[in-house]
Amino acid sequence: MAILHEKILLDRLYSAIGGAPVRIVLNGQEVGPTDTAPIATVHVQDRHTLLALLADSEVGFGDAYADGRIQVDGDLVRLLDVVYESMSQRSPRANWYARTFSKWLEWRQDNSIRGSRNNIHRHYDLGNDFYRLWLDREMVYTCAYFPEPHATLERAQTAKMDHVCRKLRLQPGERVVEAGCGWGSLALHMAREYGVAVKAFNVSREQIEFARLRAREEGLDGQVEYIEDDYRSVTGKFDVFVSVGMLEHVGKRHYQELGCVIHNSIGDSGRGFLHFIGRDHQAAFSRWIRKRVFPGAYIPTLCEALEVLEPRKFAVQDVENLRQHYAKTLEHWLERYEASRQQVVSMYDAAFFRSWQLYLAGSLAAFRKGSLQLFQVLFSGSKCAPIFWTRAPLYTESKAAVEKQKWTPVMS
Amino acid sequence: MAILHEKILLDRLYSAIGGAPVRIVLNGQEVGPTDTAPIATVHVQDRHTLLALLADSEVGFGDAYADGRIQVDGDLVRLLDVVYESMSQRSPRANWYARTFSKWLEWRQDNSIRGSRNNIHRHYDLGNDFYRLWLDREMVYTCAYFPEPHATLERAQTAKMDHVCRKLRLQPGERVVEAGCGWGSLALHMAREYGVAVKAFNVSREQIEFARLRAREEGLDGQVEYIEDDYRSVTGKFDVFVSVGMLEHVGKRHYQELGCVIHNSIGDSGRGFLHFIGRDHQAAFSRWIRKRVFPGAYIPTLCEALEVLEPRKFAVQDVENLRQHYAKTLEHWLERYEASRQQVVSMYDAAFFRSWQLYLAGSLAAFRKGSLQLFQVLFSGSKCAPIFWTRAPLYTESKAAVEKQKWTPVMS
Repeated sequence: MAILHEKILLDRLYSAIGGAPVRIVLNGQEVGPTDTAPIATVHVQDRHTLLALLADSEVGFGDAYADGRIQVDGDLVRLLDVVYESMSQRSPRANWYARTFSKWLEWRQDNSIRGSRNNIHRHYDLGNDFYRLWLDREMVYTCAYFPEPHATLERAQTAKMDHVCRKLRLQPGERVVEAGCGWGSLALHMAREYGVAVKAFNVSREQIEFARLRAREEGLDGQVEYIEDDYRSVTGKFDVFVSVGMLEHVGKRHYQELGCVIHNSIGDSGRGFLHFIGRDHQAAFSRWIRKRVFPGAYIPTLCEALEVLEPRKFAVQDVENLRQHYAKTLEHWLERYEASRQQVVSMYDAAFFRSWQLYLAGSLAAFRKGSLQLFQVLFSGSKCAPIFWTRAPLYTESKAAVEKQKWTPVMS
Repeated sequence: MAILHEKILLDRLYSAIGGAPVRIVLNGQEVGPTDTAPIATVHVQDRHTLLALLADSEVGFGDAYADGRIQVDGDLVRLLDVVYESMSQRSPRANWYARTFSKWLEWRQDNSIRGSRNNIHRHYDLGNDFYRLWLDREMVYTCAYFPEPHATLERAQTAKMDHVCRKLRLQPGERVVEAGCGWGSLALHMAREYGVAVKAFNVSREQIEFARLRAREEGLDGQVEYIEDDYRSVTGKFDVFVSVGMLEHVGKRHYQELGCVIHNSIGDSGRGFLHFIGRDHQAAFSRWIRKRVFPGAYIPTLCEALEVLEPRKFAVQDVENLRQHYAKTLEHWLERYEASRQQVVSMYDAAFFRSWQLYLAGSLAAFRKGSLQLFQVLFSGSKCAPIFWTRAPLYTESKAAVEKQKWTPVMS
């Protein structure tokens, strides 16, 4: 009887993942494609794990993969690719249990000032040594910009920082506020290469300490001030607002608040930049990632993100979708991460290693398939002088030539 | 007593326009700035006109300007500039009369299939001879793209058409559907320069007849088919959807319908382009323009426009704001239009000339000040191959070099 039940449950699971070309095995029973070779084989350890998968495939799979109760034979990224693909064909409506759990997470992980601090601490304060294992040497933990697909990660992260500065047409002496500065590399880059003064905010203590040390080492601590505080505590007047990879942590219900912070900082005459992971349509963010990896995260559509800007009459000047560049960035990260298996396991444990491996592999699959997008949005206040006449100088002028123009805003 | 009343009414009007530096004169009474020279003087003919201005400043001013009951001494565009500017500082809430009138217009001018045909007919079927007086020789009646601010209008309209084609990376042999094709120049450009086959829709009879004639003259009628029909009647399968300057006429309540039409045409694997006048924040479109010039028009924010795309999982790849380019385009149109005063008056009458002069001048002021924006949005279906790796080739490669690549989509 037990065996019969298991076969029925396996069939249900197989139909829940939309008949993706994957073989699933439990106690000698198996399901899988009949007309094509499977991409990978998923070994489920016991019936308990199978039931968890049926109750909530995201969290069930994530937790069981981390614990080793699920083992994958084959390429993990390709497995996730095909499962996302076939599940996206089906109704996106999660079951009752999954929806309720999602609501509960939203409430539990709300990004109030205190909530944000906890949420950010859980992810970004895992130890700089951990991130150093697989990020580039500048410790940039956001999508890179690869001038060519085969550029190195190091070069692509520098090119990304430059791309941001050039889009904003930073001018020497300008005052910039950065919300969510990570380990501080963009603030240093702006100060060093473009001669601006930066106030950079972040609630992650480990990141801020690391950033301050670097600023002192580079002799840029007069020009860059790192502040361990929430974006809602930003005060002062600035020419430019920048935020790279923070909107994901703000949470939809706080978008208007962020809009107010930006408006208080740069008024109607400033300009700004939001770089964030987005979606092409509204959908809930992975429950497993929110539970285990990124508490409080919400991934908006472009339209949802515009709730930050439109109520304050900020005009969008430019949007660029860098989805392919995030997939490429994640290929580099995942490769470096997997090569650091031993160190990660000795710092934490095998389950932690597998959790983060799944998170990186899942993100890579999501950017490849387009379930996640990366938007860079350049905007300006209603009384801001035009930033550029055409975008050509971003591509045709060397940095030296652009500097020679002294960054004078182009007027008609 | 009458004189006293007029002074009170003039004071109310002056406060309604936010104390803009403008002198207003009626029957020897006047109001205006005390601390600065006025930009221009507005002569109001009679008390009736003044009351109409107080009831609804937009429609009152527009109609009285057209009739000659209001005369302006000074630069009309600068006058509108400063009035927009100072009114934008005030509460944007229109009075009860204006709001009700706005709702009535919305209902009266709804863009149902029949309504659209009437609305479009009223604007675009004024006679090709009329438009020929002040548009470029290709008769492109949308924002141009000036590679440099001093390019000619002719060159800028060709550059705009090329910019659209290059953003879309059109490949020879592809099938393109165009919704709202004007006098047909973009469809011809795509066919002639990029070797695609185009089906172009428009409900304006005069425009379609003109376009068909041109296609025959150029020997492109095998490649370009002009269809006198509504965008909702588009059938067939295409690689690319293009619409330049039509979304303004669709009306907000029909955006999802447009999204369906696009999805039926290009499915999940196609790509598309929307070029439209937009706003940086939600606001009602000028009641006077809707009443007299553009019945049925609605100007969306970027977020509102995304209602066309996000429900169908179309991913935004690129947005460019060409507001300054529309101001420049309108400078050219207004100059040519004013130089054709005699011809326009003899075709219609002086009131018609002044209506359109006000519409062009008001649009120019609005794009200069940022109350109107121009968005170009490139998007792709959820299963579309990436369109480009970076935007650099748009700016660094000559057309010949780009063609040499044979438009192979770049893959990571």
